[in-house]
Amino acid sequence: MSPKIPSRRGFLAAASLAGAAGIAPAAQAQLVPSRPQAEPAQEEPFYGRYQGGITTPMQEALYFAAFDVAATNRADLITLLQNWTKAAARLTSGLPAEPGTQDDDAPGLDSGEAAGLTPSRLTITFGFGPELFEFNGQDRFGIAAQRPPALADLPRFAGDQLVAGQCGGALCIQACANDPQVAFHAVRQLARISYGMATLKWVQDGFSTANKTQGTPRNLMGFKDGTMNPTAATADAVVWAGPEGPAWMENGSYMVARRIRIALEHWDRMKIAFQEQTFGRKKLSGAPLGGSHEFETPNFQATDANGDYIIPDTSHVRLAAPVNNDGSQILRRSYSFNNGANFVAERWPPWRQGIEVDAGLFFQAYQKDPRTGFTKLFDKMSKIDALNQFTTHVGSGVFACPPGVQPGEYIGQKLFEA
Amino acid sequence: MSPKIPSRRGFLAAASLAGAAGIAPAAQAQLVPSRPQAEPAQEEPFYGRYQGGITTPMQEALYFAAFDVAATNRADLITLLQNWTKAAARLTSGLPAEPGTQDDDAPGLDSGEAAGLTPSRLTITFGFGPELFEFNGQDRFGIAAQRPPALADLPRFAGDQLVAGQCGGALCIQACANDPQVAFHAVRQLARISYGMATLKWVQDGFSTANKTQGTPRNLMGFKDGTMNPTAATADAVVWAGPEGPAWMENGSYMVARRIRIALEHWDRMKIAFQEQTFGRKKLSGAPLGGSHEFETPNFQATDANGDYIIPDTSHVRLAAPVNNDGSQILRRSYSFNNGANFVAERWPPWRQGIEVDAGLFFQAYQKDPRTGFTKLFDKMSKIDALNQFTTHVGSGVFACPPGVQPGEYIGQKLFEA
Repeated sequence: MSPKIPSRRGFLAAASLAGAAGIAPAAQAQLVPSRPQAEPAQEEPFYGRYQGGITTPMQEALYFAAFDVAATNRADLITLLQNWTKAAARLTSGLPAEPGTQDDDAPGLDSGEAAGLTPSRLTITFGFGPELFEFNGQDRFGIAAQRPPALADLPRFAGDQLVAGQCGGALCIQACANDPQVAFHAVRQLARISYGMATLKWVQDGFSTANKTQGTPRNLMGFKDGTMNPTAATADAVVWAGPEGPAWMENGSYMVARRIRIALEHWDRMKIAFQEQTFGRKKLSGAPLGGSHEFETPNFQATDANGDYIIPDTSHVRLAAPVNNDGSQILRRSYSFNNGANFVAERWPPWRQGIEVDAGLFFQAYQKDPRTGFTKLFDKMSKIDALNQFTTHVGSGVFACPPGVQPGEYIGQKLFEA
Repeated sequence: MSPKIPSRRGFLAAASLAGAAGIAPAAQAQLVPSRPQAEPAQEEPFYGRYQGGITTPMQEALYFAAFDVAATNRADLITLLQNWTKAAARLTSGLPAEPGTQDDDAPGLDSGEAAGLTPSRLTITFGFGPELFEFNGQDRFGIAAQRPPALADLPRFAGDQLVAGQCGGALCIQACANDPQVAFHAVRQLARISYGMATLKWVQDGFSTANKTQGTPRNLMGFKDGTMNPTAATADAVVWAGPEGPAWMENGSYMVARRIRIALEHWDRMKIAFQEQTFGRKKLSGAPLGGSHEFETPNFQATDANGDYIIPDTSHVRLAAPVNNDGSQILRRSYSFNNGANFVAERWPPWRQGIEVDAGLFFQAYQKDPRTGFTKLFDKMSKIDALNQFTTHVGSGVFACPPGVQPGEYIGQKLFEA
């Protein structure tokens, strides 16, 4: 017997039929919530000029994975990218990872845990790390000359405490969806079909309330995160690589990823006024200090009776604002993370030490050139941002995300045809 | 200036007013999803005969934390439980953790990241571990004589690979909500107000599609998980402690928690037919082998042409079925987890080794007596369940969860008045 594993969409239709035949699961009155209202298909387009998951409005869950390449020649790498592209197109449509009819005497075409779920706005975004172009001085795939100048190695920033095994990677996959099971499912299928050609290096899952919140979502520090992001109208100019070259990256973007642990227990003991001085914004409203509304332009010149800036010199908003950085801007697309709990010894009063949560922000930024985007902005911030008292960068990566594909193409195809 | 941090409900009302005043965030056309439809208040009751989070239909996200007790006397422990109870009642209603008017020159009454979110069906469930009653031979709080016989230490089960630092605990908090930020937020507030009286030992977050799936949700092995669970009509008899004593636990329940890592990469390479033999069920439909529909009664006597059971001797469903265990039954309330990736060397073909995902099932079971519930069931399963080839128990805990409270009472109050 070789039943075809139905698509998730097909599966829903089948469930519906079963209901009509009187086998409705609800009749069992199990301890499951009442059925949610039928929602729209929740499908994000896979094909297009740009990859999804960059200017796509943020979803609720992230699963990010970085890979080393095991393939040793160009043909195998291309095969991997072809397989990944085909599978990604299927997965974002809610179909099983591989096409065909399931043979029960063979492993699954799909691991199955997303059956019955909608596509949940799944996007899959691929990136190429510096190691793909050159590794230990070797040009394994004949593409070293095509490495974009914008894909410069990140410098060591002040305060970096990077864990080598959780940094970098030759390839990365960012899967975002409104369901964490759907996001993980996607990466799991792609990892499986890459066997022998790519090996997992590190992963990170995350969550965001962007899909649920009224307005700008809050991060784990309790402040709104992303107020200064480019709007839908201005993001394209910030994010997408243009004709500056290499040609294969036109309409692509560069992702910087930083795993930032936050000393939440310490932060929670700080006075609200201190927290607001640290950010340069009011906690509840998100308004810049001295202002009333979240989206008003911060007045960086305003001073108090002592002649001090109302928005302090070392505040996050002052240091990050484009107006104070020659117009530099990035698109933040960050998810909070929770990686369990482990031992921490704090470095300043109250000098608490013990088991604390290993939580924080998996910061991701997209831009047309990290040298004039994240690196420019963070070089200064890493030295004097008051937030640094509470944040530690423990993971890092930079990736060139090629443009989107049309049906029949594979991700990064122009790189190999260059 | 001492603005009151509004409740999340109050916050929504305020946001609405802001909108009416022409300061609608949507006017910024940021890269945030279109506003979801207004949903019901999504509030689960906190007060009642039973604690929430046990027979409450499963939510989408779990944050579980186990604590050691730092309090050295009974009065301090009672104060902690009083503070936790008051805060939990507020949090499940979507209010900030602590009441009062926020003074900007003081730390926050709440860390703030849930502002603007609904209660998201948050439930908070408290449990008392064996160590609360006796620790290193000491009866620290004068309650050793009240330790329930049902709160027996779990035996070492075959195959256990428990990591000591991620097991047990004197107290536990299970927070479940339809948003992971709300679940974590709750535990974070409770941990903060316990400072000096309880210290974090280990935590685990998890996710489930129970709130989204048509029918029984699937776990990461791709099979439906919970088909044999008691129904809404039968759960009470399985779950709640009765007059058998101690009296303070009547209408309480006992939680067994097991962190079960699953060799997903290996599982995905097994033939579908093998996977189905392992579970004793069809993967897609969830029907017992030899049957057609998920909820039909498995025929454990049926044999094939060779005289072998159609539902194999070592299959999960045969070993777990109440009918094969003197009627023993538990309420499973499990969440899948993703704890990053780390090195694994597999123990049988294809002997793959490398970086694999550290993912699996945070199994939680509720029952009136673990000795005749989980321990009875799992003692046999740990030895011969075919699933054990793919699962490793790496964390464990058992907790007595007291009955629910009425306004003015604190959790476990009857224990201290016994």
